[in-house]
Amino acid sequence: MNTIAEVISPEKLLSHWQGHRNLTRRVIEAFPEKDFFEFSIGGMRPFSALTSELLSMGAPAMKGIAEKQESPFEENSQHLTTKAQYLEKWDQATEDINHYWNQLKVEDFQETFNLFGSYNFPVIENILYLIDNEIHHRGQGYVYLRALGIAPPFFWER
Amino acid sequence: MNTIAEVISPEKLLSHWQGHRNLTRRVIEAFPEKDFFEFSIGGMRPFSALTSELLSMGAPAMKGIAEKQESPFEENSQHLTTKAQYLEKWDQATEDINHYWNQLKVEDFQETFNLFGSYNFPVIENILYLIDNEIHHRGQGYVYLRALGIAPPFFWER
Repeated sequence: MNTIAEVISPEKLLSHWQGHRNLTRRVIEAFPEKDFFEFSIGGMRPFSALTSELLSMGAPAMKGIAEKQESPFEENSQHLTTKAQYLEKWDQATEDINHYWNQLKVEDFQETFNLFGSYNFPVIENILYLIDNEIHHRGQGYVYLRALGIAPPFFWER
Repeated sequence: MNTIAEVISPEKLLSHWQGHRNLTRRVIEAFPEKDFFEFSIGGMRPFSALTSELLSMGAPAMKGIAEKQESPFEENSQHLTTKAQYLEKWDQATEDINHYWNQLKVEDFQETFNLFGSYNFPVIENILYLIDNEIHHRGQGYVYLRALGIAPPFFWER
């Protein structure tokens, strides 16, 4: 393995994602319990539903990629009803993502894999989508918090 | 260069970013002229100001990195007053980013560079920050559009 040829290593990309996931965790924490489940703007989903989407994607996607199982996407399969349950699930996903990520070899990232039986792209592209989608929805959570008069955590603190 | 050792190549990372930039361009286009400059939620900046930040970062950052010039960050240096001017500046930045990106060798991405004289990190980390920051602010723009009753472009369309 020629480390000079990499733009980013698997280890650093995982660390990058987990840094983002740590920030998302603090955004979940910043919501008042009721607003986490009820507050929304312009007909969008409340942040609990956006978080459910992220939970349905991150760890299940990495499990599918690592085990080459094209199980379908199951959103909101968790039926969580409190912020504490979401945070517990979030922390479990942190461990699961690390676990499955570490099963990948560097060359696996270039393999095409039909994620959730629907997204047939190179693994690296599917992983970047997971990260980007989290940043996207978390950015929406920042607006919800500001609209509620709550200062969100600094974007650059991971 | 051992292509197997890469998680992502410079060419694919540029394409990834420009795909995001193309989506951001369509978000700018989706705003009514007046709302682009005036609409905001919770005391946040209007989308024109967020776009100014992105314009002040992307191409100037890549110029600094390519030319190893640690020029300070200059926000809102453009003094743009119409959406058409922003879109023109956006398209110029697209070309500039391609131009400076193509001056980088793959090993340059691991070099530490003090971006804008303030952010002393490996080039790849600074570049990921540019992309992530754009996704973050664009996600906020999605909420503005929804609050205005406007359907934003699909997130997965680049």
